[in-house]
Amino acid sequence: MAVRVAVAGASGYAGGEALRLLAGHPDVEIGAVTGNSNAGQPLVSLQPHLLPLAGRVLEPTTAEVLAGHDVVFLALPHGQSAAVAEQLGEGALVVDMGADFRLRDAADWERFYGSPHAGTWPYGLPELPGGRAALEGSKRVAVPGCYPTAVSLALFPAYAGALVENEAVIVAASGTSGAGKAAKPHLLGSEVMGSMSPYGVGGGHRHTPEMIQNLSAAAGEPVSVSFTPTLAPMPRGILATCSARARPGVTAADVRAAYAKAFADEPFVHLLPEGQWPATASVYGSNAVHVQVALDEAAGRVVAISALDNLTKGTAGGAVQSMNIALGLPETTGLPLTGVAP
Amino acid sequence: MAVRVAVAGASGYAGGEALRLLAGHPDVEIGAVTGNSNAGQPLVSLQPHLLPLAGRVLEPTTAEVLAGHDVVFLALPHGQSAAVAEQLGEGALVVDMGADFRLRDAADWERFYGSPHAGTWPYGLPELPGGRAALEGSKRVAVPGCYPTAVSLALFPAYAGALVENEAVIVAASGTSGAGKAAKPHLLGSEVMGSMSPYGVGGGHRHTPEMIQNLSAAAGEPVSVSFTPTLAPMPRGILATCSARARPGVTAADVRAAYAKAFADEPFVHLLPEGQWPATASVYGSNAVHVQVALDEAAGRVVAISALDNLTKGTAGGAVQSMNIALGLPETTGLPLTGVAP
Amino acid sequence: MAVRVAVAGASGYAGGEALRLLAGHPDVEIGAVTGNSNAGQPLVSLQPHLLPLAGRVLEPTTAEVLAGHDVVFLALPHGQSAAVAEQLGEGALVVDMGADFRLRDAADWERFYGSPHAGTWPYGLPELPGGRAALEGSKRVAVPGCYPTAVSLALFPAYAGALVENEAVIVAASGTSGAGKAAKPHLLGSEVMGSMSPYGVGGGHRHTPEMIQNLSAAAGEPVSVSFTPTLAPMPRGILATCSARARPGVTAADVRAAYAKAFADEPFVHLLPEGQWPATASVYGSNAVHVQVALDEAAGRVVAISALDNLTKGTAGGAVQSMNIALGLPETTGLPLTGVAP
Amino acid sequence: MAVRVAVAGASGYAGGEALRLLAGHPDVEIGAVTGNSNAGQPLVSLQPHLLPLAGRVLEPTTAEVLAGHDVVFLALPHGQSAAVAEQLGEGALVVDMGADFRLRDAADWERFYGSPHAGTWPYGLPELPGGRAALEGSKRVAVPGCYPTAVSLALFPAYAGALVENEAVIVAASGTSGAGKAAKPHLLGSEVMGSMSPYGVGGGHRHTPEMIQNLSAAAGEPVSVSFTPTLAPMPRGILATCSARARPGVTAADVRAAYAKAFADEPFVHLLPEGQWPATASVYGSNAVHVQVALDEAAGRVVAISALDNLTKGTAGGAVQSMNIALGLPETTGLPLTGVAP
Repeated sequence: MAVRVAVAGASGYAGGEALRLLAGHPDVEIGAVTGNSNAGQPLVSLQPHLLPLAGRVLEPTTAEVLAGHDVVFLALPHGQSAAVAEQLGEGALVVDMGADFRLRDAADWERFYGSPHAGTWPYGLPELPGGRAALEGSKRVAVPGCYPTAVSLALFPAYAGALVENEAVIVAASGTSGAGKAAKPHLLGSEVMGSMSPYGVGGGHRHTPEMIQNLSAAAGEPVSVSFTPTLAPMPRGILATCSARARPGVTAADVRAAYAKAFADEPFVHLLPEGQWPATASVYGSNAVHVQVALDEAAGRVVAISALDNLTKGTAGGAVQSMNIALGLPETTGLPLTGVAP
Repeated sequence: MAVRVAVAGASGYAGGEALRLLAGHPDVEIGAVTGNSNAGQPLVSLQPHLLPLAGRVLEPTTAEVLAGHDVVFLALPHGQSAAVAEQLGEGALVVDMGADFRLRDAADWERFYGSPHAGTWPYGLPELPGGRAALEGSKRVAVPGCYPTAVSLALFPAYAGALVENEAVIVAASGTSGAGKAAKPHLLGSEVMGSMSPYGVGGGHRHTPEMIQNLSAAAGEPVSVSFTPTLAPMPRGILATCSARARPGVTAADVRAAYAKAFADEPFVHLLPEGQWPATASVYGSNAVHVQVALDEAAGRVVAISALDNLTKGTAGGAVQSMNIALGLPETTGLPLTGVAP
Repeated sequence: MAVRVAVAGASGYAGGEALRLLAGHPDVEIGAVTGNSNAGQPLVSLQPHLLPLAGRVLEPTTAEVLAGHDVVFLALPHGQSAAVAEQLGEGALVVDMGADFRLRDAADWERFYGSPHAGTWPYGLPELPGGRAALEGSKRVAVPGCYPTAVSLALFPAYAGALVENEAVIVAASGTSGAGKAAKPHLLGSEVMGSMSPYGVGGGHRHTPEMIQNLSAAAGEPVSVSFTPTLAPMPRGILATCSARARPGVTAADVRAAYAKAFADEPFVHLLPEGQWPATASVYGSNAVHVQVALDEAAGRVVAISALDNLTKGTAGGAVQSMNIALGLPETTGLPLTGVAP
Repeated sequence: MAVRVAVAGASGYAGGEALRLLAGHPDVEIGAVTGNSNAGQPLVSLQPHLLPLAGRVLEPTTAEVLAGHDVVFLALPHGQSAAVAEQLGEGALVVDMGADFRLRDAADWERFYGSPHAGTWPYGLPELPGGRAALEGSKRVAVPGCYPTAVSLALFPAYAGALVENEAVIVAASGTSGAGKAAKPHLLGSEVMGSMSPYGVGGGHRHTPEMIQNLSAAAGEPVSVSFTPTLAPMPRGILATCSARARPGVTAADVRAAYAKAFADEPFVHLLPEGQWPATASVYGSNAVHVQVALDEAAGRVVAISALDNLTKGTAGGAVQSMNIALGLPETTGLPLTGVAP
């Protein structure tokens, strides 16, 4: 019997990607699709790539509209998910693609978001130690941020294996869809094509505490993170270049072994063959994550690099993966394993 | 029981796209994957986006290797398909993604390809009048060229309805994957990014006679075609802007009605709502074709525009669609209906 | 003695390009730079590529601010130039990069712009027959639209030489900067990268009557134009693919001779060597126009293709070129002859 | 009296950029242009953006051809410059845009290039402490690598001011032109558009020892460098994200003051206003370098980011700048100060 799924915030990029994946999910029947400012408009006028959903009209994001679904995906501005979730009650599985329930530390939340902390939900990154157990049967899922997904998967084996010191330096490049669909001058095609530029430099990016939370949990002690995000001239994709000082005596073989073991049974996260490096094009539109790692003997650092699609594994694909686990469906159901390349 | 499919020429873009789609086809089991110069190499070293096929090694393209499959996809340089097909005998369904068997007129073939004509196979564009009937149960399929697919779908309703004069003017923009994976200086990223440029101007492009063949068949009389292809700074996609002089008395309503009727029952070809125009991004990685049409009263021309993915509907997706029909499977099986956007 | 130049509308793309060129013009001293909504802001916060003008602050666009300059460049929304020009009086050379004074036919203006016609100024396309004479010593210049510049230069030799019939079919691809700097969702990088899409299809684009005006003047009789603009995934550049039915008896040699003669003495417009086709990358950031032409014997059409930079020769470079002529300076002063490539 | 300049290796990207700049240099007359495999071909068939040099034909790269010039630019594969330079004797100024003479440590050279060290020439980065003095009147110039230029300018003020520890972590994104014009499959537009990917990970990139050389000189003691280059989907530009642990007690004000002082009198290197971050688009085609710096209090690191055009300031523009100094010309002569944006 099909699972009925509603998507709130269906006019944006995260909502659109959720619908693209859910439309191809064999066990899902798409129910309500909602959007506030766009309520009343045909979905395909805003998401022309979703023509199989032609005929769907955006409804307002209200409890009445979202009621009566087995699963509700939330793609809302931060601060709005709590209220909606409360009204939905405990019956429905609520998958929040926003930030509201990702952080455990209320002080972190308040410092970075400047509003009261709504709480903490089971964290939707099954590949982390204990990640799947936390999601099985859960009625709430906090989908990780796109950068924390890329960074945590690239570095947790090094921290879980105590291979590196507790200071990580991360520079990540993201496609422009990570900045959302709101029209801002600096996101115009004329501005971004042919250009690389950083933003949120110096520790200000809101995904930083989430990375610290995940890496510290893997290390079993506090890890400091220097994170610099950059905007790359591509619509999708994150390439995260992560490094940390190697602990004394750690060898290249130790590092490779730890990563091979960490991802051996993962359906989506792949340690590439030696000599091959990740490229965001290879995971375009898929739920796959490509990881490679090296030990720089001269500089004494472990360098781990991951590539994923920020809208798929980084947002909506990760959300569907967690939904599958929470509902007891096979984890890979409805999720593309291959990228659209070239 | 799964259909066993081999792909010859699996190291290129057409072969890679065929494998991407076949890997997700519920009724298909992928058999041999072959490539000549790359025989012996792991498939994923050449097609890193196909990690679910890790472990596959490219075999040489020989009759022995290709024997014993229900279906064989050929993605070979033109002139090579005939020999391979002969050796495979009548038992297997052979789907040729190359040019060898597309043209009916041997003189056209020899003029544009400078070699003897190998013959003509059932033409894999089911949306054309009589298209499906020609494919049902067939053991041979000639997959259309990417440009002829885009142009024929954009214009056949106008010619079948006798709405326009028999002179078509076509300017099409293609992503660079249409030029293949062979490393040529003018196809370097440094050369193509930020640049639009034409090629094969003045009637020289080899897809021209195929367009003439299809449009003349729809019109029931000879149609002349002025075709100018251009290279666009994107990996995938074709946008075909096609126009022809409107016949006297033809109205905008006549035109719209003819197109609405032509595509009413098509699973992949969509006439967009009035006011919405095709964009290649909307069909990225999908088998969908978006079409829009207008009557320019002042210039007296019907302008029809189509967008498709040159590697999916334009090549490998069209091939899988025809395979489905030839085998009696539901036509849309294993084919993405939604584009990967943004 | 330096010519003092003010730029009104300096926060947009046309104004920014004018300043880039004027900053490198040996005979020019940049005076006031103005912008309405952005008045009071530092210029480089809006135009970070213009750091040599650091310290300049945008002033309001008023007659007082613009008074006392030898030349005033206007980069204003259409409908605003007339009022400003009147206040400046006859003393200053006013170069309008907007549309207000381009059209001779008031009815055309009113049909396409829906407002009263402001008048007609000397037309800033010196390469057209009689073009330079109209500009020498003039105190007013109407800078052509970017598309009409590309199309008129590609086709006027064919019409002036009576080589083609009076029906032109034009499909042009433009970089996104042609759509300006106002933030609109469909111009976001996420939407335009990897995508080709048409707009203003069916004769609605406002540049159409300007093309008809120029081509009809060259032909000496009315020419009809079917014009389809497309948006290409690049910041700058226009590639215009233009064709018209060849008149009986016209040969490829006739066509080439006419184009060679038309551009023989032009400093910026180049007929490429046979076999070489224009690419927008080759004219990036320069005032050059690359043209190539062919006769398609089979289709009976002359195909002429031009490439230029929509912001340089298509707008601000053309404006500086016309300023040079109007002031009696050498025509090429301060204008880049080479593109920035790759 | 004009300086006669020859360019050896004129068919590649570095040679083409040198010609673009030299063609606009008021004191330069371009002499011989050479290329080995392409000798005999018209320059513009390989460099269509250089139409003002139409008529020039590539000559072979021989001492006879290069003799009799005041300046010779070398854009040759590494290992070839020494032989050519010897034959030219002491009379001519030789500006080597290749790697042969950049490194002082012969062991470093041999380890990274696997060939005997040719020697060390005055280093063409005038902005470094003592940089200009080393170039004045010199007859030999080793133009720095593009990455070392970006990284050294971003970090030398921090090391010269003893603000940071002697371990730098650098992640840089480069446009594809940095990889040259040789056709390789992974550099095809189809592969690079929409993709970010790393290469030379783990300390292997040949520019690493050059960075160590420059930063160690600034620090007065050995500095270790972890360098990860990434390929970005753009033709030009380098964005270098550089960080190092701040020394105890260092404040944000200390950092800003050191950078403001370092670049106060530089014509090309600009410390951006606080809150504004570099973008490669802003320096496209110019010799400018945009730098910004921040102190990440939480992570305890100084983060310095620079943007430049790898072909202009990173190669040919830096070469012309050094030529100007060596010849006693004003340093900025013939060099664009503004980027081509958007």
